[in-house]
Amino acid sequence: MEKIVLAADLGGTNLRMAAVDREGKVVFRNRMSTPSHGRLEDIISAIYSVIEESKRELEGRYEFAAFGAAVPAIVNSQEGKILRSPNLPELNNFDFATRFYSDLGIPVVLENDANAAAVGENWKGASQGVRNSIHVTLGTGVGGGIIIDGTLLRGVDGTAGEIGHIAVEPDGHPCGCGSIGCVEQYASASAIVRLARSLMADHPESMLRSHLDITPLEVYEAGMKGDALSLEVFRLVGRYLGIALGGLVNVLNPEAIVIGGGASAGWILFIDHLEQEIKRRAFPHPAERVRLMRSELGDDAGILGAAYLASEKFAGSDRT
Amino acid sequence: MEKIVLAADLGGTNLRMAAVDREGKVVFRNRMSTPSHGRLEDIISAIYSVIEESKRELEGRYEFAAFGAAVPAIVNSQEGKILRSPNLPELNNFDFATRFYSDLGIPVVLENDANAAAVGENWKGASQGVRNSIHVTLGTGVGGGIIIDGTLLRGVDGTAGEIGHIAVEPDGHPCGCGSIGCVEQYASASAIVRLARSLMADHPESMLRSHLDITPLEVYEAGMKGDALSLEVFRLVGRYLGIALGGLVNVLNPEAIVIGGGASAGWILFIDHLEQEIKRRAFPHPAERVRLMRSELGDDAGILGAAYLASEKFAGSDRT
Repeated sequence: MEKIVLAADLGGTNLRMAAVDREGKVVFRNRMSTPSHGRLEDIISAIYSVIEESKRELEGRYEFAAFGAAVPAIVNSQEGKILRSPNLPELNNFDFATRFYSDLGIPVVLENDANAAAVGENWKGASQGVRNSIHVTLGTGVGGGIIIDGTLLRGVDGTAGEIGHIAVEPDGHPCGCGSIGCVEQYASASAIVRLARSLMADHPESMLRSHLDITPLEVYEAGMKGDALSLEVFRLVGRYLGIALGGLVNVLNPEAIVIGGGASAGWILFIDHLEQEIKRRAFPHPAERVRLMRSELGDDAGILGAAYLASEKFAGSDRT
Repeated sequence: MEKIVLAADLGGTNLRMAAVDREGKVVFRNRMSTPSHGRLEDIISAIYSVIEESKRELEGRYEFAAFGAAVPAIVNSQEGKILRSPNLPELNNFDFATRFYSDLGIPVVLENDANAAAVGENWKGASQGVRNSIHVTLGTGVGGGIIIDGTLLRGVDGTAGEIGHIAVEPDGHPCGCGSIGCVEQYASASAIVRLARSLMADHPESMLRSHLDITPLEVYEAGMKGDALSLEVFRLVGRYLGIALGGLVNVLNPEAIVIGGGASAGWILFIDHLEQEIKRRAFPHPAERVRLMRSELGDDAGILGAAYLASEKFAGSDRT
């Protein structure tokens, strides 16, 4: 029987599962809403139920060789443990790999969702064939993953890649992580809304003025119609992302920066400002060298990355 | 005959040379002043003259297997080319490896001085046995080198590691690199003097007041005597270094940060502020994990690093 891996992407809203073959082809996929009762066992049960559905569907045709999971958390990927999960706090300190390994009997790989997305894009997406790249996920927060010489940078405990928590304003806006002025506070979907609100007083003419609850999509749509407030918001997104990434270009000398996540929909409104800021901040050689790319896999980046890491584990070799 | 490598550390003031065996033992060393006439050929001649002296001294006992050089410049270490050398501009665009290889007939390795220092400390200094570390050199500028999984991080062209040019004040002091508010402007020897001058008006009681030309050493000595202005300068050094390194702790999850260079003499005056700022900025797990260490090799870090890289080149294997 052909061996395939199971890959899960656990988000705050949805739990997505896919059975992925060695070539990166999804042979089956399913999903359900992420249980929101705040109980760990509910999330575990949900994961089992999507796994069971996959098993029933693929029985007799495929053998599951490993299970990879991407989670919105700081994880110790060496040990397969969740350390801190701000959006799903019931997962804090959960020993994910041990639990699922003991029940499933196959190797289990756990990774931070933005790290998994970096691996996915490097395997099947925008940065295929690129050995050194930075991946930024602009979602509710700002996630990151770094590929060095074809391999995900994990650091000593596997918590590396937290690009969203580089300070860009030393005395800036408080961040959920406990620090101050992190780039996440200036370039995430939540930041787009916060910036729009905070600039409203200077822009009485803005078409966002009539909106009670502003969404990032509305700021984007207003920007596309030329709304000055919205354009200023995306200028700031590009500028602050450029301050963080300009420093990383000096430190890492990458070949590519791949930008994905929901808020990367605003690409056309921030990319020139981002590029300009990187050129202004970084040394000429690495600044000229780095290419800015848009994610190609969208929502599938994390699940494909989790699948890659799982298949790497069972194959026991680097397939990059 | 036993094989040894030649290693040079070319600084703005001194050119230092050592013949180093496989175990890292210096079997011969010499030095001369770096020619300051601004002519490339003068520097090349100076390097040849210290090499010739080493050869004469060691003739018949050792065979030179490779030549490694550490230079104060942005280099393309893959190609052995100097790209930009702010302190010795006569070296700009000099194809170092090709020139010395054609004359010496042995493999030539070129590396940025702070990168070489990182390798040296990792081989024989503070971070021996540590697989993931950040190395900061506080000199006239702020240099950096990063070791990932036992290997120097070079990036796609070999310009990686420029930690000194991470922005810590987005609209701060102009930097020699062309950017604004780089940590080099807040934590180098030059920054110590600049900060002391700029804070003078607030500290009419300072014992530095009577000095015409303040040196970093004087600021340190005044700080050790409790001078409030000097203590404030080192608080700022620690704070800004902590902003840059706190971000890198989140991004790289290193096991150690090693701090060296002349201005690291002020260690006792800035280390608590630095540690506090890292803890305030970085996620709890990586912040708890990272150890702050002082360089152990001092001036020899760069030369030993260059020797290691040269011996790695001729041995053709990673000896970490």
